[in-house]
Amino acid sequence: MLPAYFDPTRARIASILRRFLEEKKGELARVNPMGPDAAERLIEFSLRGKMLRGCLVHLGWSICRARGPGVLEEAAAEGGILAVTTAGAAMELFHSGLLVHDDIMDRDLVRRGQPSIFQQYTKMAAKERRADPPHVGQALGICAGDVAYFMAFELLARAHAPAPVLCSLLELCARELSAVGIAQMQDVAWGASKSGVEVGEILRMYTHKTGRYSFSLPLLAGAAIADAPGELRGKLETFGESIGLLFQIRDDELGLFGDERELGKPVGSDVREGKKTLLFSSLIAAMGPEERRRLDGIFGNPHATAADIEYVRERASSPAVRARIAAITAGLTEKARTAIGAISSGSEEDRAALRGLLDFTSARRQ
Amino acid sequence: MLPAYFDPTRARIASILRRFLEEKKGELARVNPMGPDAAERLIEFSLRGKMLRGCLVHLGWSICRARGPGVLEEAAAEGGILAVTTAGAAMELFHSGLLVHDDIMDRDLVRRGQPSIFQQYTKMAAKERRADPPHVGQALGICAGDVAYFMAFELLARAHAPAPVLCSLLELCARELSAVGIAQMQDVAWGASKSGVEVGEILRMYTHKTGRYSFSLPLLAGAAIADAPGELRGKLETFGESIGLLFQIRDDELGLFGDERELGKPVGSDVREGKKTLLFSSLIAAMGPEERRRLDGIFGNPHATAADIEYVRERASSPAVRARIAAITAGLTEKARTAIGAISSGSEEDRAALRGLLDFTSARRQ
Repeated sequence: MLPAYFDPTRARIASILRRFLEEKKGELARVNPMGPDAAERLIEFSLRGKMLRGCLVHLGWSICRARGPGVLEEAAAEGGILAVTTAGAAMELFHSGLLVHDDIMDRDLVRRGQPSIFQQYTKMAAKERRADPPHVGQALGICAGDVAYFMAFELLARAHAPAPVLCSLLELCARELSAVGIAQMQDVAWGASKSGVEVGEILRMYTHKTGRYSFSLPLLAGAAIADAPGELRGKLETFGESIGLLFQIRDDELGLFGDERELGKPVGSDVREGKKTLLFSSLIAAMGPEERRRLDGIFGNPHATAADIEYVRERASSPAVRARIAAITAGLTEKARTAIGAISSGSEEDRAALRGLLDFTSARRQ
Repeated sequence: MLPAYFDPTRARIASILRRFLEEKKGELARVNPMGPDAAERLIEFSLRGKMLRGCLVHLGWSICRARGPGVLEEAAAEGGILAVTTAGAAMELFHSGLLVHDDIMDRDLVRRGQPSIFQQYTKMAAKERRADPPHVGQALGICAGDVAYFMAFELLARAHAPAPVLCSLLELCARELSAVGIAQMQDVAWGASKSGVEVGEILRMYTHKTGRYSFSLPLLAGAAIADAPGELRGKLETFGESIGLLFQIRDDELGLFGDERELGKPVGSDVREGKKTLLFSSLIAAMGPEERRRLDGIFGNPHATAADIEYVRERASSPAVRARIAAITAGLTEKARTAIGAISSGSEEDRAALRGLLDFTSARRQ
């Protein structure tokens, strides 16, 4: 669970998302009945998320905004909260779109504890006796992801942010999302290859696919709304990159060692898909030739058995592998701590939230 | 070919697109080498288009802008041209993204005379001996389409439009694109079904998938940049809807009767995919039970032969079918003409361009 600090923000984002998508349901009903149906699926899907990224917009803003007593300040804060909550809701819809498309690419049938969106459409197509339900499911999933992006941009336009802020928010989101798409391409291409990948290359992919996108982008979006000075933005960006890498490394661990019910998605799928995770690369590097041969037969094999996954799990728990990962996470944790220490603005609560995020990231179970 | 009126605009859009995507190549190279490669594919793909939608932003603006002599006016016009050209370039990138995703959904291997983007990636994956090249090609195609959208929004942010204009441009694009995605869903679902569809339903799908998107949206984007009054915007919107339907109906005809080389995509694929086009619906309605049975075996059959397509072509040329389509196009042409007649602003050249578009739409060969 996210630190309790984020609870009120999370509730506000959920409320804005629900209201906006309910409104879109009415609007899209004029196109055809699949419109409100898709909006409903996106409400349901989005509200089941942790809303980490949306909450970080608020935290970034709260750290950067000028504080002081007085009614005017309060009024400005009200406007700011509306803008950051709306931008946070947009961030969650962007994330829904990315996940919908990711699941098609990774053939993940379950997400957030329910059938993934393209899988929902595949089932619907089968029920309606359409030709080739898996293809129809994928095609409708592509559309649903696209629509999620477009609606996220529409939400941004409605954030009631002052002009230069809207412009930099738009540019910021669009630029980072392009980088996510390109990093995702690399992830897909690597997954379909037997060749190993250097640790540095993996970390670079993680930086753009997760680190900057999941942490730096929303923190910077909040900073943009608060019109923060460049130096402070830089500190948040650096913090985001370090904690974002830690978040992804924890994601890899959960994908192998996690509890499926808590996680809401199948365990071992990274292995079956042959994903070039840091865990994979550290594992291969630490093993002898015989173990490597066996692992080679498991990684990227969609029919790998539960016993195969158990073998990977057991080998990945060996001290040699743990030590390699720990060396990297220790360095990143140190960097993130230093970045937090360098941030002197915001309330004591805000800075505690930054520290809380670091604990959350390495201890989270979903 | 588009009327010559659009030539200078087309050249300016091409130049902005090329410059922007070249810049993105450098930026995305920092993510990984697939970034500049994807940007290069999108340059190449986008520049091969007619750029109709991009050019319409300029036309919408030119019709709506206040005219008059004087240096200040000229300077404003310069700024306006930069904004409309950049927004036009964004419109072309949106369109590239939609086409990239459409081709995955429709399994179209050729587009604009070259392998479609996902097919380019499938070939690349096969050459690099990746596992399951068709799946890798689709996945990379999904990413490339996503990146095209994100870069289009980034271009919008750079249109140097005044704040309220940027906001309404963003909202306008995002809203219409959501409707396109929902209309596309309907198109996909219908294509995978044997049931017939009412003409009214087909026209509603066309309105959102093509009509409003290809004509009303760019014209209204231009009107937004010129800060046009609501009444004038309404006239452009109505004109866009009528001509947009004519454009799509012509698209259906070209898809069956066109010249593959001029068209840049295979003829007869709508038939093989079982698309519920107006032509299909008019054909079925005009035929007797025996012909219907034969047509039923051809529509939606991916293995339909050249002789099958020739049979459809021959039946679709019958006077009964032509008359049904002509009744609809005559009404739409009349509506479009009336809408043009109601537009009194803009130069004589601008209004001639509107009339030229109408001729282009019904006579175009690509």
